[in-house]
Amino acid sequence: MVQFDRNEHVFHSPDFEEIVKDTIRFFNGTPVLSIPVPERFHGTGVYAIYCITKVGLYKDFHEINRTSYRVPIYIGKAVPKGWRQARTLSSEDELSYELHNRIREHGRSLDASELNRANFRCRFMILEGAESDLIGTVEAALIRNYLPLWNTLIDGFGNHDPGSGRYEQAKSDWDVCHPGRPWAERCQGKHNDKDELIEKINSFMKNLREKYSDA
Amino acid sequence: MVQFDRNEHVFHSPDFEEIVKDTIRFFNGTPVLSIPVPERFHGTGVYAIYCITKVGLYKDFHEINRTSYRVPIYIGKAVPKGWRQARTLSSEDELSYELHNRIREHGRSLDASELNRANFRCRFMILEGAESDLIGTVEAALIRNYLPLWNTLIDGFGNHDPGSGRYEQAKSDWDVCHPGRPWAERCQGKHNDKDELIEKINSFMKNLREKYSDA
Repeated sequence: MVQFDRNEHVFHSPDFEEIVKDTIRFFNGTPVLSIPVPERFHGTGVYAIYCITKVGLYKDFHEINRTSYRVPIYIGKAVPKGWRQARTLSSEDELSYELHNRIREHGRSLDASELNRANFRCRFMILEGAESDLIGTVEAALIRNYLPLWNTLIDGFGNHDPGSGRYEQAKSDWDVCHPGRPWAERCQGKHNDKDELIEKINSFMKNLREKYSDA
Repeated sequence: MVQFDRNEHVFHSPDFEEIVKDTIRFFNGTPVLSIPVPERFHGTGVYAIYCITKVGLYKDFHEINRTSYRVPIYIGKAVPKGWRQARTLSSEDELSYELHNRIREHGRSLDASELNRANFRCRFMILEGAESDLIGTVEAALIRNYLPLWNTLIDGFGNHDPGSGRYEQAKSDWDVCHPGRPWAERCQGKHNDKDELIEKINSFMKNLREKYSDA
């Protein structure tokens, strides 16, 4: 048997890191659209939600995102069916409307709360065929880059109805701050304190305002 | 609002496909070792299990894999903790022994059945840091390339003990063909017919023998 040398097994690829940077640049150059996206389209990929409201908790986003969409409030992905399993590429992938549907669903969540989808915009990038393997990578890279509020401090925006028999769980932080989704209101578990969460949001927004005040 | 044009949102990267090919080439050049890997090592990544037995159902693998390890019987991955969530890279990733442990566990499965880990070898590739994002991609590409028997026709080799209260499920095809894992023997559900599965294996091995007979 061969002598063991760990280094012989480690794969490094500077090119891979370059590709990930390319995806971010491409993403940041995609058109910004209303929610839901005005035309139904097929495909899977990664998206960002931007807030542009002038009022309330998030009013500073208006100034920050006014000239260009600089700071997303949420990053998400829509993956092909069977994505978690190793899968063969199929033409079915291309017929999925996951990305469009996912963004539309976010619009419904915003409308169910006191927020309003008219105060939000989205941007997205379709990754299909071999490139669909990059979806998780690009989502993670974007989240690391932007640390969006609803991916980091205030969790739960992307949650789904847990379904009957599973309402013993707690309301997510997002639902505590933005009550309205009917299924979230059914959750019975002990949730986090609203005042503390709002304090977190205020402090996050203050930092953001300072960071972008001279930009 | 901007006019919608799907093409503006689609990311293509020929370089990405090249990188995936590089990973396969690198993988195929890594040393082949016994199971478990003789030295404990840290890291996550992708591995292959090769059969080299001279007897039984799989005896043709001896000839096929004799001069070089050409046809894996199984491909698997070991991912960093929290991999399914978007995560920040942490030094903890490097301290995980997931890949070593996973291969060792496969050795135990082989020994628990009538198979014997002495008749098997492994090969693996460590993907860490930014490259750990490639784990799922590389695993899927290797499976597509080799269509290993235990990833395709005969499922279940990589299964874990479902745990108490969940033994109502059926024994996997792998466990039907290779009985012995104590937790698999507890599974109560209606499993597939052993004779039919063995017939599938024989037919798979026959095709493989013909494909590699003149090589």
